[in-house]
Amino acid sequence: MLPNLTPDVDLAAELFDGLRAGSVDGEGVTRDAYGPGERMAHALVRAAAERIGLETTVDVAGNMYVTLPGADRAAKRIILGSHLDSVRQGGNFDGAAGVLAGIAAVSGMKRAGFVPGRDITVMAIRAEEAGAWFPVSYPGSRMALGALKPDGLAIARQDTGRSLADHMKEEGFDPEAVARGEHAVGPHNTAAYLELHIEQGPVLDAEQIPVGIVTGIPGSRRLRQGRVVGEYNHSGGTPRKFRRDAAAALAELVYRMDEEWCRLESMGHVLVCTFCTMATTADAGFTKIAGETTFQLDVRSVSPHACDLMFEALHRFMDEIAARRGVQFECGPETGSRASPMDEGIRAGLLRAAETLRIPHRVMASGGGHDAAAFAEAKIPAGMLFVRNQNGSHNPKEDMRMEDFAAACAVVQRWAAEASL
Amino acid sequence: MLPNLTPDVDLAAELFDGLRAGSVDGEGVTRDAYGPGERMAHALVRAAAERIGLETTVDVAGNMYVTLPGADRAAKRIILGSHLDSVRQGGNFDGAAGVLAGIAAVSGMKRAGFVPGRDITVMAIRAEEAGAWFPVSYPGSRMALGALKPDGLAIARQDTGRSLADHMKEEGFDPEAVARGEHAVGPHNTAAYLELHIEQGPVLDAEQIPVGIVTGIPGSRRLRQGRVVGEYNHSGGTPRKFRRDAAAALAELVYRMDEEWCRLESMGHVLVCTFCTMATTADAGFTKIAGETTFQLDVRSVSPHACDLMFEALHRFMDEIAARRGVQFECGPETGSRASPMDEGIRAGLLRAAETLRIPHRVMASGGGHDAAAFAEAKIPAGMLFVRNQNGSHNPKEDMRMEDFAAACAVVQRWAAEASL
Repeated sequence: MLPNLTPDVDLAAELFDGLRAGSVDGEGVTRDAYGPGERMAHALVRAAAERIGLETTVDVAGNMYVTLPGADRAAKRIILGSHLDSVRQGGNFDGAAGVLAGIAAVSGMKRAGFVPGRDITVMAIRAEEAGAWFPVSYPGSRMALGALKPDGLAIARQDTGRSLADHMKEEGFDPEAVARGEHAVGPHNTAAYLELHIEQGPVLDAEQIPVGIVTGIPGSRRLRQGRVVGEYNHSGGTPRKFRRDAAAALAELVYRMDEEWCRLESMGHVLVCTFCTMATTADAGFTKIAGETTFQLDVRSVSPHACDLMFEALHRFMDEIAARRGVQFECGPETGSRASPMDEGIRAGLLRAAETLRIPHRVMASGGGHDAAAFAEAKIPAGMLFVRNQNGSHNPKEDMRMEDFAAACAVVQRWAAEASL
Repeated sequence: MLPNLTPDVDLAAELFDGLRAGSVDGEGVTRDAYGPGERMAHALVRAAAERIGLETTVDVAGNMYVTLPGADRAAKRIILGSHLDSVRQGGNFDGAAGVLAGIAAVSGMKRAGFVPGRDITVMAIRAEEAGAWFPVSYPGSRMALGALKPDGLAIARQDTGRSLADHMKEEGFDPEAVARGEHAVGPHNTAAYLELHIEQGPVLDAEQIPVGIVTGIPGSRRLRQGRVVGEYNHSGGTPRKFRRDAAAALAELVYRMDEEWCRLESMGHVLVCTFCTMATTADAGFTKIAGETTFQLDVRSVSPHACDLMFEALHRFMDEIAARRGVQFECGPETGSRASPMDEGIRAGLLRAAETLRIPHRVMASGGGHDAAAFAEAKIPAGMLFVRNQNGSHNPKEDMRMEDFAAACAVVQRWAAEASL
């Protein structure tokens, strides 16, 4: 029988305020990966953890581990983790909520004098925001897991142009050790990984449910450097049949992909398809027909088949449009990730915890990618818990109510306490 | 009976080379309106004109007049004109060809000892390239004609942000005099205006005809500051029904306008419809749904009705798409110009000249707008002659064969000689 535990939400609230104060950037916050923003966040959380007597260590990649020791210190630990970096001018909750939920859970246990059966470790992961900083999936957790390919260390941060290894060294970490294969986390020493995260989407908010238990993380197929090449011409003097209009061609592609998404959805496929950017280039201008456009495409689904159907359609549309409009499509390198189902046992445990605590919840797929995918891929049982949030994420208006966070923390804490036994 | 005249094409060729040398900018040329590029071009043409003994004057707006005196100096003059500015990194022929054709024509007359019946004046017009510099139609010729509204002087150059009046003063001209209504050209002193110009489109090249006699200049309806406002959201976490995707919305608008153009064309309407730019904004990025996009739309036709049909469709599509996709369309200010038919008498004279000289020609509408429209609007009989060119215009690869130019110059010269009598 577990004692009556409550998470230390006041401590988490203080830390949210501290994080915001230390990384405010215009209306939002910027915590750059392996840079001053993320450094501040790690230092802040570390100081708080040490103040309340938790053990802290940092691995060769700069990931931080805050541990509440368990009765059996040799047993495989439980990790409660997420990341502390943010996108540029993002919100205060994406990532940080998962780390602070872990801190609130273990701080609450310590305050109650509860000793878990095994170590419970809060993990603050580095560099999760691949879209903003290092364009590779989950470099921080993958380094912790020994799963980052060595060439991943050479990848350049998008704003500075300097490599991951370079940025790591500057922050005092050890890319050479990472390259040699040193890593802190694996199935040999970790029983489970749980990540709390704001939902990022509007589903929980629309359905008025505070907590989501995640079935899986979608895989993706992505083009970040798509390009359409046509021909610049005078917009007045060039009749239709002589045009090679890269703007009209891209617009048609975007429109037809959107129609195809609709069609697949009506057939029961679950996926999202987004042209994140779409633009004529600097050479375009008034009275010109666009000779070049660029685009970024992000297709995601828990089902790899659905992603593949969209990419089959993409290539079919490109061929048709290119032939008809006299343009060339260039996809550039394709990136992506495999879908990661969450562990059945953890899902069942989270359901049990939410039911015991009478916290309204629903089961749902993740929309975005999360570090939990890297743990699942490394064969560590992984789970995720979503918290209702307002205004999406990756934007300054990102929002989360503290009562929802408290409810989710309670689920995390109860699950971890039970799983530790 | 006219003597056997030939245009001084060698002089024009020399001046083309000089213009290119003085304004080379990467692969193309840049002759900025009321700036160093245009200043160089005017100085070069003026020096050549004075060297061969032609009269030169400059009006309060900086337009230059190079005159071969006629037998009756009190009679209304004939103007052969075009502009000397270019778009940024444009070609060497758009505009300059018309001025140098005039120079070649009058230089050839002077060389042959031919005295026209009235003054023939070559006019080098300022600031025609509204898309590149001052976003108002034909400010140079309109100032010469006393037809620029005073608020036109306040319009800012797109790259410098400084006003037309400011730029004019810097070049030594007199915007106050312009504002007072001083102007050099009007129906009282000008019998006709003829402008030679490269076609800008591919029609003559495709049909292998060197010269086009222009029926009219299209009018336009234009949006330069169109905007679509949606909502930034996470591209993974936001299901279709919660999206307000400004990129998908704009793509649909562009696609449907293109379909509408197709449909109108199949019904016999002659027009062009171009989204010159279309772009997600700086806030967009990978893993985000675009919350804002911008566009520029240019619809042109010799028939105002065809432009109106396209704009009716535009507003219908915007309403439908906005309702369905949860975005807002903002058109911004609409600009445009009325269609200008070319003078029947000049068209007949050009046809006669081309036939006498046995130069292959066709009759065609202009695609682009030209200074000739401002003259037609000011009730001065205006005509245009197109020269076949390769690779369109407003780009560095713009091209024109000197034998085609020579043929067109011969038509201009013969027409002017005959019209002067």
